[in-house]
Amino acid sequence: MLHRSGVTQSLARLVVETRWDDIPSPVRHQAKRSLMNFFAVALAGCRTEPVEIALRSLAEFSGGKQVTVVGRTERIDALSAAFLNAAGANVHDFCDTHLRTVIHPTAPVAPALLALAELRQVSGPDLLLAFILGNEVQARVGLAVSPSHYSRGWHITSTCGVFGAASGAGKLLGLDERQMIWALGTAATQAAGLCECLGTAAKSASVGNAARNGLWSALLAEKGFDGPPEPLAGVQGYYNAIAETPDLSLITDGLGESWEIMATSYKPYPCGFVIHPVLDCVLDWRRDHPTAEVARVVVRGNPLLSDRTDRPDVSTGRESQVSLQHAVAAALATGRAGLDEFTDASVRDPDVLALRGKVEVIRDPAFSTIAAAVDITTADGKIHKTSQSAARGSDVNPMSDKDLEDKLRKVAAGWEPRHDVAPLIDAIWALEGSKDVSALASLAVPST
Amino acid sequence: MLHRSGVTQSLARLVVETRWDDIPSPVRHQAKRSLMNFFAVALAGCRTEPVEIALRSLAEFSGGKQVTVVGRTERIDALSAAFLNAAGANVHDFCDTHLRTVIHPTAPVAPALLALAELRQVSGPDLLLAFILGNEVQARVGLAVSPSHYSRGWHITSTCGVFGAASGAGKLLGLDERQMIWALGTAATQAAGLCECLGTAAKSASVGNAARNGLWSALLAEKGFDGPPEPLAGVQGYYNAIAETPDLSLITDGLGESWEIMATSYKPYPCGFVIHPVLDCVLDWRRDHPTAEVARVVVRGNPLLSDRTDRPDVSTGRESQVSLQHAVAAALATGRAGLDEFTDASVRDPDVLALRGKVEVIRDPAFSTIAAAVDITTADGKIHKTSQSAARGSDVNPMSDKDLEDKLRKVAAGWEPRHDVAPLIDAIWALEGSKDVSALASLAVPST
Repeated sequence: MLHRSGVTQSLARLVVETRWDDIPSPVRHQAKRSLMNFFAVALAGCRTEPVEIALRSLAEFSGGKQVTVVGRTERIDALSAAFLNAAGANVHDFCDTHLRTVIHPTAPVAPALLALAELRQVSGPDLLLAFILGNEVQARVGLAVSPSHYSRGWHITSTCGVFGAASGAGKLLGLDERQMIWALGTAATQAAGLCECLGTAAKSASVGNAARNGLWSALLAEKGFDGPPEPLAGVQGYYNAIAETPDLSLITDGLGESWEIMATSYKPYPCGFVIHPVLDCVLDWRRDHPTAEVARVVVRGNPLLSDRTDRPDVSTGRESQVSLQHAVAAALATGRAGLDEFTDASVRDPDVLALRGKVEVIRDPAFSTIAAAVDITTADGKIHKTSQSAARGSDVNPMSDKDLEDKLRKVAAGWEPRHDVAPLIDAIWALEGSKDVSALASLAVPST
Repeated sequence: MLHRSGVTQSLARLVVETRWDDIPSPVRHQAKRSLMNFFAVALAGCRTEPVEIALRSLAEFSGGKQVTVVGRTERIDALSAAFLNAAGANVHDFCDTHLRTVIHPTAPVAPALLALAELRQVSGPDLLLAFILGNEVQARVGLAVSPSHYSRGWHITSTCGVFGAASGAGKLLGLDERQMIWALGTAATQAAGLCECLGTAAKSASVGNAARNGLWSALLAEKGFDGPPEPLAGVQGYYNAIAETPDLSLITDGLGESWEIMATSYKPYPCGFVIHPVLDCVLDWRRDHPTAEVARVVVRGNPLLSDRTDRPDVSTGRESQVSLQHAVAAALATGRAGLDEFTDASVRDPDVLALRGKVEVIRDPAFSTIAAAVDITTADGKIHKTSQSAARGSDVNPMSDKDLEDKLRKVAAGWEPRHDVAPLIDAIWALEGSKDVSALASLAVPST
């Protein structure tokens, strides 16, 4: 299998050899945008039940109070912090997304690096470089087997995230090429996570593990814990085990020349991405018609919209994140589509309930998944036609830097209204000039 | 997929509902034999490099000194102890084996239960019952996809072990059926491990994780960490992800009536099982001819013997475990086939080297994998014909209780010659009458 050998080595070499000077300015900036989004979603998730339970359990076994848990006053050992910060960031359907693989790239990687940054001296450029490289490795590992890997039921954020966390952490540790291959091998043999667990706490276990086990793989490799030379494409390696025939050219082509982080989408709304263009239409219209009484809403969109989200009856906030009817109704009732609009309380709100039954959906393959048209009929019989060709936050209509700051500010206001996130926002934008980022995560901890 | 639902529930129900009184006497006894073998292999592995490195790394993050690491004076938190004891037990090729699945069943399960036994009050029957049930669950999960799962490259001890550890630990925690299904879901989303890593330290990561993550899955479920209703056979569940069409009848047929632990084989020699019938022949002959000079050895066996172990040149102790030529040569040179005969030093021994070149192997499909015939030609030209129809330790020619005790004694003598393992041996045989097994593992700790 000669043609397959060297794939892991290619990735390891990229990570070991790439220097900060090799990273173009827009890529550096995108990394900061991803971190801005990360802190928003991590604050959104930091007090959810899966995080609460995992924190309580891990605290029984953890010794050190080495590392920050984003959004919380508790500190915990670095491995557990990596777990908790990754799990928390991915609890809601609010993460960034690499659309070609459907990987949520920042949740597994950033927590591993932030944990390490509290153990060792790490500069802003070190952090950003390791983050960009970890992101690249996990995207490439996933691209080679997309879309079949995800559609078969693997939770790709978890299965590929462990490679991203391992390589990013390995970069910060200064592993050499041989050690980096070892780290990727120990990561490969820990790659796990099932979509069957989505919507349950169990999902958080695999996402948390991706960060924790990736970080640990790199720490073990630093101490000499060895692994096989070709864990990805070897005869009994990862791809063979998951019964995939990977397109290895998607791992190696243009490696180090283009950067997958540039294809990251960020979400303005905490719900399934296919609903986003619809919400763009509804929210814009509601802003212009704040008091209009709505009689009927007809949504036209890609068949995926109806396949995934035609869900007129929902009973929990969790379910509401994938209900078109709920999202539209809540947006019309409140003029907003933030975290508060996808809660158990919002699902039970009589105004939302009344509107939910007025929403219909039409399948139309002429629409892309980021486009939609919404006809809103008001009580006076008038039909208001609205449409969106590219959802806000998609890579062709990206959220602006200001949008991302606002997302963080809004989430933070719901988390700790009196906490000032301006220093955190400033610190993220100033990362390139920072000599020591150990205090970054602590800017997202409530003052006691 | 209605026919597939309820498989996880069947396993959960077995674990929740089975009582000590339901376990036949021979099954109880076999569980004790497996634990005897476990302590032998755990002592054999407790000072190997993968365990040393993992222990040093975990100690940096671990708080409590709650639980015993078998064979060592260090104590560590329960999750880390489960990891280390499982990893240590499986470092050498010396574990027990469930031949139909090639699962090494005790390494992932026993460490999870022993760790829990130091946190909570656990009686001998509690421990044995949980161990038998954990063993059953992992064997059943593996049987449904054997042999394809292993031959595709999944390290089945790791991937199925996590289910065994979760269900055994869940039994000790007294989880109800719903919680047990949650625990199995959190286990499923952590199931990982690649055969590509065999022969490297990375193997220890997945074996250790199986115990650690299985234990943690049960502890999380106890606290309310939920999971999907059908993690194994659900549409995006474990079997679908690993691209298997499981034979679910192998999970449910006769569940609670027959016990897979009865099919466990134990190894008298720390090397590949296919070499065992050959070693039986050679060691018996050498005992009767201690001074005979050997000119030639012709081994006849199942083609698998030659496929897996026809390896006349080896350079490390690790490799020697799968070299027929080395095993025969070392047995002839020393009259033994213990841990000392599969080391780097043994590989370099001039007497062994000289004999290695005299060993030939013939493929013969008429032989089963547990049979062999060995013709030994001595310097006087005489041909000594020997044969073994069923290797010692195979399920049809099992190691006796005394053999298992001796295995433990021999390993312990190499580990700490002055440590008396008689109390450990006695405690294992007396488990059925024990009210509290929290001190069991400490009988395998050197006195300081």
